[in-house]
Order: sequence, then C-alpha cells, then structure tokens
Amino acid sequence: MKVAKFGGSSVASAEQFRKVAGIIQSDQQRRIIVVSAPGKRYKADTKVTDLLIRLAEAVMRGNEYDSLIEAVVERYADIARGLELQASEVIEQMKADLQQKIAAYHDDHLRLLDALKASGEDHNARLMAFYLRSLGMEARYVSPREAGIFVTDEPGNAQILQDSYEKLSKLKQCSNIVVIPGFFGYSLTGHIVTFPRGGSDITGSIVAAGAGADVYENFTDVDSIYCVNPSMVENPRQLREITYREMRELSYSGFSVFHDEALEPVYKAGIPVCVKNTNNPEAPGTWIVAKRDHRNVPVAGIASDTGFCSVNVSKYLMNREIGFGRKLLQILEDEGISYEHAPSGIDNMSVILRANQLQGEKEQRIMDRIQTELKVDEIHIEYGLALIMVVGEGMERAVGVAAKATAAFAQAQINIEMINQGSSEVSMMFGVKEEAVNKAVRALYDAYFAPVYAQKE
Amino acid sequence: MKVAKFGGSSVASAEQFRKVAGIIQSDQQRRIIVVSAPGKRYKADTKVTDLLIRLAEAVMRGNEYDSLIEAVVERYADIARGLELQASEVIEQMKADLQQKIAAYHDDHLRLLDALKASGEDHNARLMAFYLRSLGMEARYVSPREAGIFVTDEPGNAQILQDSYEKLSKLKQCSNIVVIPGFFGYSLTGHIVTFPRGGSDITGSIVAAGAGADVYENFTDVDSIYCVNPSMVENPRQLREITYREMRELSYSGFSVFHDEALEPVYKAGIPVCVKNTNNPEAPGTWIVAKRDHRNVPVAGIASDTGFCSVNVSKYLMNREIGFGRKLLQILEDEGISYEHAPSGIDNMSVILRANQLQGEKEQRIMDRIQTELKVDEIHIEYGLALIMVVGEGMERAVGVAAKATAAFAQAQINIEMINQGSSEVSMMFGVKEEAVNKAVRALYDAYFAPVYAQKE
Repeated sequence: MKVAKFGGSSVASAEQFRKVAGIIQSDQQRRIIVVSAPGKRYKADTKVTDLLIRLAEAVMRGNEYDSLIEAVVERYADIARGLELQASEVIEQMKADLQQKIAAYHDDHLRLLDALKASGEDHNARLMAFYLRSLGMEARYVSPREAGIFVTDEPGNAQILQDSYEKLSKLKQCSNIVVIPGFFGYSLTGHIVTFPRGGSDITGSIVAAGAGADVYENFTDVDSIYCVNPSMVENPRQLREITYREMRELSYSGFSVFHDEALEPVYKAGIPVCVKNTNNPEAPGTWIVAKRDHRNVPVAGIASDTGFCSVNVSKYLMNREIGFGRKLLQILEDEGISYEHAPSGIDNMSVILRANQLQGEKEQRIMDRIQTELKVDEIHIEYGLALIMVVGEGMERAVGVAAKATAAFAQAQINIEMINQGSSEVSMMFGVKEEAVNKAVRALYDAYFAPVYAQKE
Repeated sequence: MKVAKFGGSSVASAEQFRKVAGIIQSDQQRRIIVVSAPGKRYKADTKVTDLLIRLAEAVMRGNEYDSLIEAVVERYADIARGLELQASEVIEQMKADLQQKIAAYHDDHLRLLDALKASGEDHNARLMAFYLRSLGMEARYVSPREAGIFVTDEPGNAQILQDSYEKLSKLKQCSNIVVIPGFFGYSLTGHIVTFPRGGSDITGSIVAAGAGADVYENFTDVDSIYCVNPSMVENPRQLREITYREMRELSYSGFSVFHDEALEPVYKAGIPVCVKNTNNPEAPGTWIVAKRDHRNVPVAGIASDTGFCSVNVSKYLMNREIGFGRKLLQILEDEGISYEHAPSGIDNMSVILRANQLQGEKEQRIMDRIQTELKVDEIHIEYGLALIMVVGEGMERAVGVAAKATAAFAQAQINIEMINQGSSEVSMMFGVKEEAVNKAVRALYDAYFAPVYAQKE
C-alpha cells in the first residue's frame, strides 16, 4: 500500500487534477491520498493558502471580505468547471464553511487564521474525492479527525500526539481510496491546528507511518531531487537514491524540496519515500531510504544557506576555565537563541547562529553579558556568513573528500572562514562570506560531480 | 635589562655552570638570573627534582631517607668540586635546610613535597650566586620572598598574586646581579608553594614582567624552537620568529619547549622572549614577539598530541532543542571535565577531551547521565584520537592553507576524523587516529615547509 501526497502545484488546476487521477488509477497500491491546497498555476498566480491568509487578515481588521471569499471559492469552482463536474453543491458548502468559521472564531485571531488556512487543504480534499468518484473510483474524503490526526494545541505549530499512530493504523483496512487533507490536525479539545512549515508533507509522512505504508510517495513538480540547488548550477545531477540522514542534512540548509521535520515519522517507521513529478510520473524520481550503496558516490549533495553570523570571543587562557563554553551557550539560551555550531580553540570560541535572532537590543545585551560575566578580552560579531554543507554517507571513510573541497575553494580563490568536520558522519560544513557562496557552491559541484558526469558521457 | 632564565640541563654540572657564567659575563644587560634545579647530565641521569620527590616520599612512608639527602646534596657538591669552589659551608647549609624542612612539615605531606621540591631551585640559586661571586661578579642570591613573588596557597599549583608585580619592579634598581630560584613563590602566610608544570619558566616570565625587562631570555639546550617536533621529522626548520599567540597554540599541544602558562606575564607586559641554547649561545635563537611578518610563511609550526577521545552523541532533531549543547557541556562540567572542542552538526554533537579525564566509573556515570537527561538516540566514546594543530598568524587570510593540509592527508591516505577551523585565527585543528599521527605530521611538514627549504637551497 502506498500513501501518495500531492503538493500545491500538483493540485492547482483541472489539468493537474486529471494528472493526479491518472496517477492514482495507474497503480492499485495508491490507496491513501494526501492533498495540499491549490498552489500557483503560473508564476504570478496566488496560492489559495495566501488568499486565505488575506481573508483572515481582512476579517481581523474589520475590512470587507466577501470578495476574498469569492476569490477563494472561485479557484475550486474553476477546477470543477474544467473537470466538467456538477459540483455546485460542493462549492456552496465551501462558501458556507468559510462563513461559519469566520463567525465561530471572529474574536480569536490565532484560531481564525489556523481554521481558514486549513480550509485550503480541506476543501481541496473534498473536491478531489468528489472528482475521483465521478470517474467511478470508490474514493472517500476522510477528515483528519476521522483519520485520527490529533495534535498539540499550538496554533501554527501543531505536533503530532503519539496516540494518533494507533488510530491511523485502521486506515490500512480501508477498502476504498481515502483522500485526506494535509497541513492540519485536531487538538484534543476539537480545534483545527495547522502544522509548521511544510505541513502537508508532515501529514503525508504521519499517515504513511501510522497506516504502515510500504512507500510514501511525495508528488511534486520536479523529476527528482538534485544534488545541488538548480538555481545555482545549470542542469545539476539528479539523485536516484539518498538516505534519510542525507536528506535531512540537505533540507536543513537550503534544500526546499522536503521539509526536514516531515521526514521524522517515515524515518522512524523505516518507510522509504519516493519523490516524484506529477507532470512526468514515468520518471523514476528520487528514493529516500535508510541505506544506499555509496562506494562510488560518497557525496550525495551540496546545500547552502545565507544569513548567518558568528559571535567571536577571545580570552587568554580560556581553555583553563572549566565551564567557559557552557556559560557562553547559557547566555544565548537565556535569550532564546539557538546556534548552529560552536567551534572553540585554545583561547577562542565562536558561535555561529542565524543572524535574524540578534535584533538590535538583544545583540547589545548579549555582548554586554558576555563581556561582564565572562570577562573576555575581545568580542565581535561577524555578519554576512553563508554556510555550505557537503553531505554524503560515504564521506566518513573516504580519504580525500575534504581535500577535494578545500582544493576547489583554493582554486576559486575563496577564503574559508570556517570548517566543521567530524561531528556528523554524513556532512562537512564550510563557512564563507555570503558574497562568495554561489561561486563556492559551483566550485564544489564541479569538484564532486563534474567528473562523474564526464565519466558517463 | 635582560632577565635570563637557565633551565635544568643548563645548570646540571660544573661545565654547564661555567657556560652560564660566560653567558652572563658576555652581556652587561643580563642582570637578573633565574635558575632551575640541576637537571640530567646524561640520558640515564636523575634530575635533582626527582631525587627530592623520592626523598619526600621516603619521609611520608617513614622509610630511611638519609641516603637520599646525601644523594641530593652530592649533586651540588659535585658541581662545587668541578668549579673548584670552597663551598663546604654552602653544602652543609643545604643539608641542614633539608633536615629542617623535613622536621617542619613532617605531618603535612603536601607542604613537605612542595618545600622539598622547591629546595632544588633554591639551593642551585645559592650555589650559582656563590660561584659568580667567586669569579668576581657582584652577584647576590635573592629569595622569592625578598624579590616579592607572592602566590596563592595551593600546593603544586601556585598562581601569582597581582601585588607581586609592584614589589618585583624594585629589582630594576638593583645594582648587582640578582640570582633568583625558579619554580616557587611564597604564600601570604609564609609557606613555600610551587608553580604548576613549567614552573621555572613561569618565575622567569613573572620576574621579567615585574622588573620591566627589555628581553626575557630563556636558555635551554636547543638552538631554536623548531616548526615541528624534531623527534617526528629529521632536521626540521628552525624558527627565527614566532608570535606569542603562535607559541601558545603550539606549546599547548605537544611543544614542550615552552609551557603555555609561562608566556602570560611577558605577553601581557609586551616583553619579547628569546629562546637560546646555553651550549651554543652564539646561535641567534628564536624570538617570541607580538607581531611577525608572515607574508611568506603563513604557517609557523605544527604540533600534535595524543590521548584524546571523542564523546559522540546523536539525536534526531537535536538542532531544534535550544539548550542541548549547553546541557551536554554542563554534565561534563559537573564532573570537572574540561574539553578541547565541541563540534556540532544538525543531529550530532561531539566533545573532544583528554581521555585520562574519563576514568572507569566516571565514564559510565557520564554516559548514563547523557542518556537519561538528554534522551539521546545514540552515544559512544571513541578513544585513541590525536589532535594536530597547524599554527600560523598568516593563515586567516591565506587562501589554500587548508587545501594544502587536506591534500597532504589525502596523498598520505590518512583519514581525517575531524577538522576544526574558524574559531581561532591562528590555528587549524585536525583529528586523526593515534596510529596515523606521525605520518600525518610528516605529511603536513612536507606540505608546508619542504618547499620553503627547497627554495632556499
């Protein structure tokens, strides 16, 4: 049995709905379908989720909002028309549902936002089930409540409750095709609560794990996951196989294909993930698995992200002070700041963190506390850092992986601000100035992947 | 004015005493002399300090110890005979002093050990002053108490009290040559307390800083500091100049020429240090200075040390947990463990520390605490790690320094367990398996220094 999740662009229009139906029909194993809200049909289009956020804002501000309800519902009506469905009743129900939610949560803005956002997926799942039935399939909309997706009651940041998995296991016995909206669950008190970023992927992953799927298929709009961001390198190499660990390290630092938190449930359940293209379902896609043969390709991918800074402190004989590092991290923790990496030397320590966590006053307060409490000789913050991750299961034992990277940087005349290798068995981290990041990623790509290409051609 | 400190091998015999006198006479600037206890005269010889430790142990155990007193005093008597000195009175005083100390501290073992150890330097300074006077110099023994070296009252781990520096400044006005024993000071309650490892170097450095010397000369038995341990590479390159920071990083990890703590006073006072050879005083030696021209030689040296281990923990979504790293370091701190470096990845963190800190029960307790308090997925300790430091002021801005190192490792087929670059501006740290450390150091030496040599020849 397969759980197939279709992302926003895969369910954005009538044409896309037809492709999805074809994909479901082509494989009897695809029994549980998770859908996103309709995404963009063309570059300048607006996602339904964004329309819903505007709607929620209009309600909160007391502005006129009927036209926004119309705009949302029109997206579904447009799909229904394109599919030649007699769906006016379904469409009317959507409108009524939005109005009822606005009335119910008028004075509770966080809940209103969550309920309206979630309706994007909910309505699309209803429409998809309706459409599949019109094609003669035994398809049924199942709400997250009926399926058993119960979550913590934190609007916008739902976390799955462990009991849900047992409830979800009953889905396995379902004889017909089940269509579940992604992105949200229900709190134990009956409220709609949305997942954080990447929410529909999280739903798909939870459902696959709970229902004990053989495969979790994640349909998107690219043929595969690439070894590097395609906006940085032209026609980069496609990945046939990647491990959970590799995917997680990559998705953490700039790979937007798959949100890292979404992998946890399938990773823990040991269910392989296949990322496929709705627009080209024949392409083999990329498999995310527990183990891969990495003898020939020690490095799986290169990811990068900008917007980091480094808090550098130095103090003579720092290494004699038991507890120095702990105290420095404590100060950051007191301010709610998370850090990426904290390399330390004999008299120096640096803490690399996302710079947006250091806003004006906080920055000064932290500097002052470090100065007075730790009596450092020097402290300065360096902004404009980019982190680059070279990720691969084969790296740990491959002599020369680091040499290739550093040689590539040297040849491209890029100064390495920081290297972190050794904590993770599957990644190596480099810090460079933000302005050098594109050049650095291309240099690394050429070093690790260009020869493989050349060999094949 | 110069403060000249002579190490154990420089004052081990009559012949060495003659060299020291010659060195003092050859430069009017050498007015303050700091001496160690007599060291080894030949490889199988025993240092006086070690004889004194044996003496203390015999006293503590209630064993016969007269023969040990004789053995200690005989070393000085031997020097006196070799110098044709009429020193029987001085020698008798030594014997009386040892007996008096044993009587005074018979029941306080820590104080006894400190007092006896310190006598090695103290008696040697008295003998040196006596000898210099016999040559017609105006030389005077000055005890640390008279000089003003007052320290904290921690036997074996004295730390200088800041007030001492003002007292020491009066030494500058001294018209004759002052001979001060190294290795110890006096607590405010009048007890002898020794410095930690490298103690006579510490005394020399404190005296130089306090007396406002122009140069602190450190006489030892090598022509210069080498860029790498001469036991690992044959005839390595000599260093003409090195900065305090470089010296400190090198001496921390395996460079035994200069103990790192000893540099602090002169570093803070901005006094240049010259390391010279008592047996070849004409050689220019190595200067330790605040700044050097590093354009042509970005790397100053390579040091290494073994006996490290790595505590590796992994936990899925670790990076989401604010405070994880701090808590891990807190557990180590609770156990009084200091760490060298704590690289962290997305789901992993490693803490590198000296393995001798993890004794049987403590290891298990720490593992258990990490497991239960931090709920990690996995924890294991990897023993047998060596750390290699590549040190140089010119590294920070030199593209390709890291590339050279990693290429050298790759060529020598050495797997890099860990790289830490970026916290310190003057060093890069590599972790390798202990069995690979010699090969690794030689590979790095060839990469950084062999070409420079080739150029010169």
